[in-house]
Amino acid sequence: MKIVCQKDVLLKGVNIALRAIPSKTTMPIMECILISCSNNQITLTANDGELAINTAVDGEIINPGTVAIEAKILSDIVRKLPDSDVTIDVDDNFLVTITCEKAKFEISGSDGYDFTGLPQVNRSKYISISQFNLKEIIRQTIFSISDSDNNHIMGGELFEVKGNILRMASLDGHRISIRRLELKDNYEDSKVIIPGKTLGEISKILSGGVDDEVIIYITKNHIMFEFDTTIIVSRLIEGEYFKIDNMISGDYETKVDINKKDLLSCIDRSTLLIKENDKKPLIMNITDDNMELKLISAIGSLREDISVNKTGKDIMIGFNPMFLMDALRVIDDENVSIYMVNAKAPCFIKDDSESYIYLILPVNFNIN
Amino acid sequence: MKIVCQKDVLLKGVNIALRAIPSKTTMPIMECILISCSNNQITLTANDGELAINTAVDGEIINPGTVAIEAKILSDIVRKLPDSDVTIDVDDNFLVTITCEKAKFEISGSDGYDFTGLPQVNRSKYISISQFNLKEIIRQTIFSISDSDNNHIMGGELFEVKGNILRMASLDGHRISIRRLELKDNYEDSKVIIPGKTLGEISKILSGGVDDEVIIYITKNHIMFEFDTTIIVSRLIEGEYFKIDNMISGDYETKVDINKKDLLSCIDRSTLLIKENDKKPLIMNITDDNMELKLISAIGSLREDISVNKTGKDIMIGFNPMFLMDALRVIDDENVSIYMVNAKAPCFIKDDSESYIYLILPVNFNIN
Repeated sequence: MKIVCQKDVLLKGVNIALRAIPSKTTMPIMECILISCSNNQITLTANDGELAINTAVDGEIINPGTVAIEAKILSDIVRKLPDSDVTIDVDDNFLVTITCEKAKFEISGSDGYDFTGLPQVNRSKYISISQFNLKEIIRQTIFSISDSDNNHIMGGELFEVKGNILRMASLDGHRISIRRLELKDNYEDSKVIIPGKTLGEISKILSGGVDDEVIIYITKNHIMFEFDTTIIVSRLIEGEYFKIDNMISGDYETKVDINKKDLLSCIDRSTLLIKENDKKPLIMNITDDNMELKLISAIGSLREDISVNKTGKDIMIGFNPMFLMDALRVIDDENVSIYMVNAKAPCFIKDDSESYIYLILPVNFNIN
Repeated sequence: MKIVCQKDVLLKGVNIALRAIPSKTTMPIMECILISCSNNQITLTANDGELAINTAVDGEIINPGTVAIEAKILSDIVRKLPDSDVTIDVDDNFLVTITCEKAKFEISGSDGYDFTGLPQVNRSKYISISQFNLKEIIRQTIFSISDSDNNHIMGGELFEVKGNILRMASLDGHRISIRRLELKDNYEDSKVIIPGKTLGEISKILSGGVDDEVIIYITKNHIMFEFDTTIIVSRLIEGEYFKIDNMISGDYETKVDINKKDLLSCIDRSTLLIKENDKKPLIMNITDDNMELKLISAIGSLREDISVNKTGKDIMIGFNPMFLMDALRVIDDENVSIYMVNAKAPCFIKDDSESYIYLILPVNFNIN
């Protein structure tokens, strides 16, 4: 095999494939990127068993062939080469020579006979979405995926298509994040659970252009994302997702409209009083047109007033400030509405059209 | 005590004082910044026992007084406050109230009776240097300070003044870095050893302006740096520095002139083949007008040729590539000259006027 690629083109491809290289594995072949040259196309493939990525790179094929190269070394070498043409030449013993200007690296590769390529995915059921929207909706929901291994379904996100509506949701036992997005077309209904790791890696690869489309193919066990010159296939999480519609209620006793930036800044300040082993709640005391925020810990105390528009009852309620912060950070609106029932019931941060709903459970607090 | 300062002014002062807060200490008072208001001046002081910093900040003194506040908390709070006037109000029980717009923090302070202020330093012997030059000369020499505790003198840098020449040097048993700098005036001779930590912290505080002066006062046990509104006092390391002049020789068998960027890029590339537990040398094979660089490790090999101007004998010599890289990175010249005697003797990278001399010991290698 012998190919010539521009350094930056090759590096971009290697960095995309690198996203499916596991940080730890007992199978050396999983640490490799497979370079294949056939049908006049150079492709890089990586597969960690759950997530598989295939990306095509522009270049000249001098001799077709295939080689598996340890991903980390390949990436290190390409990154440090001069900005010029890179030649990758593989001999019959899979000795790989990488040449760029006067620099010549030699590393050992393998034939990749034990390399597992991309799973075959049926392309009958699909949706189309812009890269921008997909990247955004992942960012706006991924933070409340549970990182514990107790419940494997909590480690993924609901991905639900009904007509022209895409809904994604994640929850971790303390909060639920739900985003609705209108698609351009109507599609066949689907409801699957995508692993959080897959979504995290995809969102890093997506360039995020508004005019760049992603085609998403959905089957029973796999989901495939096709965009630019890249194909990503991920296993789906088996099982049925939580019935989130049953957890959401439209009833409330208190509704508060508040400037998002003011609230977020105050909550951010309050977190500096919290230490790992001393998790104190942020207490909101809402009366008339004022929200008094208060956090008291062993380090000290913070008190701050923010003007609000309130309808309904006065309420005093406590939250983990980190959970409020996570939700507020991904809301782009200038003002947010918070709906509450009582100090024991979940609050909802949502807009009128319910394009987003962030449910957060309150925590108990002592009145000081 | 009650003062009002602009948030950014206060934050800058706190961040300067923070440089003398130890990361670990058994003495709680050392974790504090002392805020003092007297003689119409607000000063912040910190002292870790070796390094003491005092910096004045602009502000309004409403009630004079003194308070010691845990540095980390103070810094966290000030950083997260809105960009506005900050009021620090301390009551008779040293409860500290920090108010900014509608945010009100309360933390506990102390009277600071056990706080150790700056050591008294005699101002008779001094030199003047621009912030830019001091920051540069530290950067250009500090990397070869030894981080082992075996020899406390190696943990500092030689700081030597003779007439109008300042010379700074550091060494770690494998290499020596020496920089000479011409000062604007003549000064009394001095020769002291400054702890590496002091130099590192000072270089982070210096704004590095060409027209901003630093006055350095030198006594037997202390060195004091005075610049902007800041005073830094450090203990000196006791003992006599190594006789570096005896280690430097002008004799050579081979002199090589080489483009610094080409050499540095090649060495940088070679380091990716080195793992923590597999330290392979970079071998330079210098013949006629060519330097062949070669590094062979368990990961793979790199070979690269660079054009050079050589005078004297051909030579093959091996180095730890990290040491070459450290020295080349702080040399601003487009071309560098490397002087060698044989494969066992140190090489010197230096300019004609010897404003810099970097000595590096070679390492043994096997010819593959």
